[in-house]
Amino acid sequence: MLPRGRPRALGAATLLLLLLLLLVGFFLFGRDPEYGLRAAATLDADLYGSRNRSAADLQPLLPPKCELLHVAIVCAGYNSSREVVTLVKSLLFYRKNPIHLHLVTDAVARNILETLFRTWMVPAVVIRFYDAEELKPLISWIPNKHYSGLYGLMKLVLPSILPLSLAQVIVLDTDVTFSSDIAELWALFAQFSDKQVVGLVENQSEWYLGNLWRNHRPWPAVGRGFNTGVILLWLDRLRQTDWELLWKLIAKRELLTLTATSLADQDVFNAVIKEHPELVHPLPCVWNVQLSDHTLAERCYLGAADLKVIHWNSPKKLRVKNKHAEFFRTLHLTFLGYDGKLLRRELLGCPSQLPPGAEQLQQALAQLDEDEPCFEFRQQQLSVYRVHIAFLPHQPPPPRPHDVTLVAQLSMDRLQMLEALCRHWPGPMSLALYLTDAEAQQFLHFVETSPVLSARKDVAYHIVYREGLLYPVNQLRNVALAQALTPYVFLSDIDFLPAYSLYDYLRASIEQLELGSQRKAALVVPAFETLHYRFSFPSSKAELLALLDAGSLFTFRYHEWPQGHAPTDYARWREAKAPYHVQWAADYEPYVVVPRDCPRYDPRFVGFGWNKVAHIIELDAQEYELLVLPEAYSIHLPHAPSLDISRFRSSPTYRDCLQTLKEEFHQDLSRRYGAAALKYLTALQQSQSGA
Amino acid sequence: MLPRGRPRALGAATLLLLLLLLLVGFFLFGRDPEYGLRAAATLDADLYGSRNRSAADLQPLLPPKCELLHVAIVCAGYNSSREVVTLVKSLLFYRKNPIHLHLVTDAVARNILETLFRTWMVPAVVIRFYDAEELKPLISWIPNKHYSGLYGLMKLVLPSILPLSLAQVIVLDTDVTFSSDIAELWALFAQFSDKQVVGLVENQSEWYLGNLWRNHRPWPAVGRGFNTGVILLWLDRLRQTDWELLWKLIAKRELLTLTATSLADQDVFNAVIKEHPELVHPLPCVWNVQLSDHTLAERCYLGAADLKVIHWNSPKKLRVKNKHAEFFRTLHLTFLGYDGKLLRRELLGCPSQLPPGAEQLQQALAQLDEDEPCFEFRQQQLSVYRVHIAFLPHQPPPPRPHDVTLVAQLSMDRLQMLEALCRHWPGPMSLALYLTDAEAQQFLHFVETSPVLSARKDVAYHIVYREGLLYPVNQLRNVALAQALTPYVFLSDIDFLPAYSLYDYLRASIEQLELGSQRKAALVVPAFETLHYRFSFPSSKAELLALLDAGSLFTFRYHEWPQGHAPTDYARWREAKAPYHVQWAADYEPYVVVPRDCPRYDPRFVGFGWNKVAHIIELDAQEYELLVLPEAYSIHLPHAPSLDISRFRSSPTYRDCLQTLKEEFHQDLSRRYGAAALKYLTALQQSQSGA
Repeated sequence: MLPRGRPRALGAATLLLLLLLLLVGFFLFGRDPEYGLRAAATLDADLYGSRNRSAADLQPLLPPKCELLHVAIVCAGYNSSREVVTLVKSLLFYRKNPIHLHLVTDAVARNILETLFRTWMVPAVVIRFYDAEELKPLISWIPNKHYSGLYGLMKLVLPSILPLSLAQVIVLDTDVTFSSDIAELWALFAQFSDKQVVGLVENQSEWYLGNLWRNHRPWPAVGRGFNTGVILLWLDRLRQTDWELLWKLIAKRELLTLTATSLADQDVFNAVIKEHPELVHPLPCVWNVQLSDHTLAERCYLGAADLKVIHWNSPKKLRVKNKHAEFFRTLHLTFLGYDGKLLRRELLGCPSQLPPGAEQLQQALAQLDEDEPCFEFRQQQLSVYRVHIAFLPHQPPPPRPHDVTLVAQLSMDRLQMLEALCRHWPGPMSLALYLTDAEAQQFLHFVETSPVLSARKDVAYHIVYREGLLYPVNQLRNVALAQALTPYVFLSDIDFLPAYSLYDYLRASIEQLELGSQRKAALVVPAFETLHYRFSFPSSKAELLALLDAGSLFTFRYHEWPQGHAPTDYARWREAKAPYHVQWAADYEPYVVVPRDCPRYDPRFVGFGWNKVAHIIELDAQEYELLVLPEAYSIHLPHAPSLDISRFRSSPTYRDCLQTLKEEFHQDLSRRYGAAALKYLTALQQSQSGA
Repeated sequence: MLPRGRPRALGAATLLLLLLLLLVGFFLFGRDPEYGLRAAATLDADLYGSRNRSAADLQPLLPPKCELLHVAIVCAGYNSSREVVTLVKSLLFYRKNPIHLHLVTDAVARNILETLFRTWMVPAVVIRFYDAEELKPLISWIPNKHYSGLYGLMKLVLPSILPLSLAQVIVLDTDVTFSSDIAELWALFAQFSDKQVVGLVENQSEWYLGNLWRNHRPWPAVGRGFNTGVILLWLDRLRQTDWELLWKLIAKRELLTLTATSLADQDVFNAVIKEHPELVHPLPCVWNVQLSDHTLAERCYLGAADLKVIHWNSPKKLRVKNKHAEFFRTLHLTFLGYDGKLLRRELLGCPSQLPPGAEQLQQALAQLDEDEPCFEFRQQQLSVYRVHIAFLPHQPPPPRPHDVTLVAQLSMDRLQMLEALCRHWPGPMSLALYLTDAEAQQFLHFVETSPVLSARKDVAYHIVYREGLLYPVNQLRNVALAQALTPYVFLSDIDFLPAYSLYDYLRASIEQLELGSQRKAALVVPAFETLHYRFSFPSSKAELLALLDAGSLFTFRYHEWPQGHAPTDYARWREAKAPYHVQWAADYEPYVVVPRDCPRYDPRFVGFGWNKVAHIIELDAQEYELLVLPEAYSIHLPHAPSLDISRFRSSPTYRDCLQTLKEEFHQDLSRRYGAAALKYLTALQQSQSGA
């Protein structure tokens, strides 16, 4: 900050310092006149001109405020895709510059991260993907024993695949966490001598000293070598020095005597540096505090005024034993649980760089009237939810013409249903979970500690991150539906347990009924409910009917909302031996099996009420036959009414808004289906309002 | 950072810069040899010595790493006590120095914040309280129209009440949020000239220009005046300049012509500065970015490289209209929802400064065996939960000899019970809520938007912040119990709705039965359950019995766990006209009314199972009579089994651990009650294991 008051030794000294800063400023940022001017501005006393900028003047090495910084990350598979999100959160939390992420991904990571970043909508972040498959030939000839597999090695070929226009890039492993502004790291490029091409932090483990065990023969390195979890790559210099040729030669030669790389790219980087030490610019250790075992990191961080980047470079990750592990865990957990939507903030004072769609969204939101009674609903309908598909590893089902995926959505308070559901449905599932970032971590732990769940590889979990107060039930269903990979889907709810035989029975029925693109049908799975937490699930239709007669089972919502399922005609179902047609009627909301390309749920219905009813109307309007299956059933287990149902029951506004939504829905129907949609409107007018 | 490589214009300049920094370093921190040495160390090339410190060298004005920084905050009432937590979180998140908080509080805030900080257990944070009551006489003579009431004015008298040993202090309003390290703010003291005693940021609103409306007559100020949301007070200089006399004189004089202060202390500070401009050291505007209306803050933050402190100085707070409001909201929400337990981290490289109890806790945790099957339970039992009592404003009940408080605990998935509970229980309640920091904010919104809940001032909500995976049911009950303020408590569960008449009936019964300290009795409230979400609650015992006979009501857990309530003897209750005695039996867990000083729940029972059973045993062991009330009843509403019940049912380890807990509990019983406790052990051995 600028000194004020009368000149004193101190004042004089800092004034001198200031002048020098200007000098340096011009050296460093001659190319950026605006910056030079800014420094100059610090001379006049204008409160808003100088003083608030003097903070920047104290760090003359930082890149200009709005300069774009480039970061490259290699990311493959489900787990790394989860890991990288935490890295990116920490990076974005402290950043003040626009960021360009260059992501080298396999198909899995790309699919996940494309969806994630598209829905995340963070301003001043540019994403570009590079296909890891294309890189494999370039490095697959190098034998490698590291847990990162081939992908670690890909860091070696970045200079040849990143755009030629790109002069400098920061390369990061997915297992690092920032606790400072990446611009400070970028600033270190300015300190490279003209020979230096790569910036690295010394390795903090004993590995390259080769004394870890008898006959431990690491790759060659200078001293304890360098760690490649955080790399400053001066790309255009590397291209000039023919880097590609250089590292290949050295790697090939080492491989004559060494069987394989143990630490992937890191071994090669160190071998090259051993031979050409002039190429490396050593970075301060705080920029890569390595928490692997046998680490000397403590020597670094205890002395440090400030930690910049933490590197969980041990297969044990967060469980690594370290005297201060708890301290570092808190840094990491901070961003594991950090609400990613809070990073959707523009950079003040930089030209606006909104992601695709953000501008229209802002305008739409701006047009809403905060005092309108249904404002909350309108706002929720417009929300763009951050979506992390395939949050956990899973195997897509093999293509089978009649296969069915169970589609459902849930939030934290229904996790306990998952194990039972897995027991009842042996087939593929696509489940959308509405969670906070912190809850997503609890969910992860829940699955990992459940033998039943972790054994299932055909269940895909898609996280939709919470936003707003109304439950976006239909957006959730649409996410799960869009991710189903079989030709047919069973649109169920999380509180239902299907008959043990249902999965097989459905596939058989689809085959027999010759459902295909030519025949548009929705197969109805009759719904029942028990009012007891514990009950023995009927193993056959006969058993079910017996329980029904005994009064320990009911048709679903028989007491509260009979019209929701009456059209299924339970009396007929009792006797039925073959599938039978039923007609649509007002408020009908059966659970159905339909082709994957069926209409989506109407996202306008948020919170409680009418969300399924509208979907069935849509099916009927598109002339799907409604066929009830004689041997199919599914049973609802008891639970407390949701917060939304309670609000619906207690708040008249809530009911009025739902009514408005219904009317708007019907207007759209008539617009799209014309006279054919009239019957729905009439039905609505006849039936009482209220869901 | 230090320049490396061969000298170039740039290198030379920065080297020169470094030398100058050293020079300045010695001027500033001559008093601190360690710092001088550190600066010197940057000359040698030791990787761990210098480079990681160079970051600090770039900001030579920062106080030494482990220096204690002092902060004073005036805080009164329930809402400010909530607000100040967010401020403190943001402060601690970025701080790297030990912090001493000087809190001027009323009785309410002190009670809340003492509990909070004791249970928060943040290392390197010292708390000291000052009684606002004692300060009132010093400033109550000043008429004041500001929303902060008298408390704002208390900032004026801090120099006279803070310890004489305290030379400098940063004074903060409760409605500011840090987005940087407070040490940078502290560093600005070094820039005061020797006349300057108070550091302030210019006021960013038009207020003091007096042009906001016709006849707008603000207090005198230089230009647009200064804002007192963030103050650097040079205390010993203020004491020397007889500050107390000075501001009083000027305030008194102004009050001859002005009716009252509109902005409390801020008016007085500005009036003093108007007369003695030499006393103020203007601070960079980024240290108090004011988001009130008519603000010029934008001129500040758009130019700024970096924001330091945001000030929500408008009664509208987060709802203030501002082009960039969304940006600032995210900064604020970051800490509203931030998990406070992540701030329980020591300062690396500073002498350990653990809060009371933390060391024993660490040792206890260190002694646990991570591979022991019940490790998770042991860990959970040791957890110290952050507790924020009286999270919302409430009025303690007037002292009445036979009054009863309903005591219960819940988590987010039971919020929807609260409204019904309020309708059924018109008396005082003490409820513990197990929530994350983010959920606590949702809960706040839920209450504020519920007419039923916001109308009730006799319900105290106590937040216990989530930690670990097992539900600490008994710790929660103990928190709610400890905060009950009536002589009697009704120990209930959140899923139960009491008879509408129960509150009055209980108070009458307590009076008739002459329960007092001389008579140790537990009044049993018979428990029933319905299996329907919606049912009409019986308005009398007769109605209840009718529903029971009709099979639409059951005695509680009749199907799953009859022994839990069998000893209540429902058959006898049917006929009973007067209270009757019952005997304890194995697994008995009735809902009871007891004196507030009853035994606490055993905190070892975490998760599901046996938590109430153990408490009833404790009552029996202490020879409480068990009296069933003939007209009392309460009814359980259906809900899905909790995650813990599910885990209990699915995991054998879970059951085994519960069994172990039971055995340890009985060992303690025999230790405390000797032979008298034998009957419980025998009972346990007879009854099947499993809750």
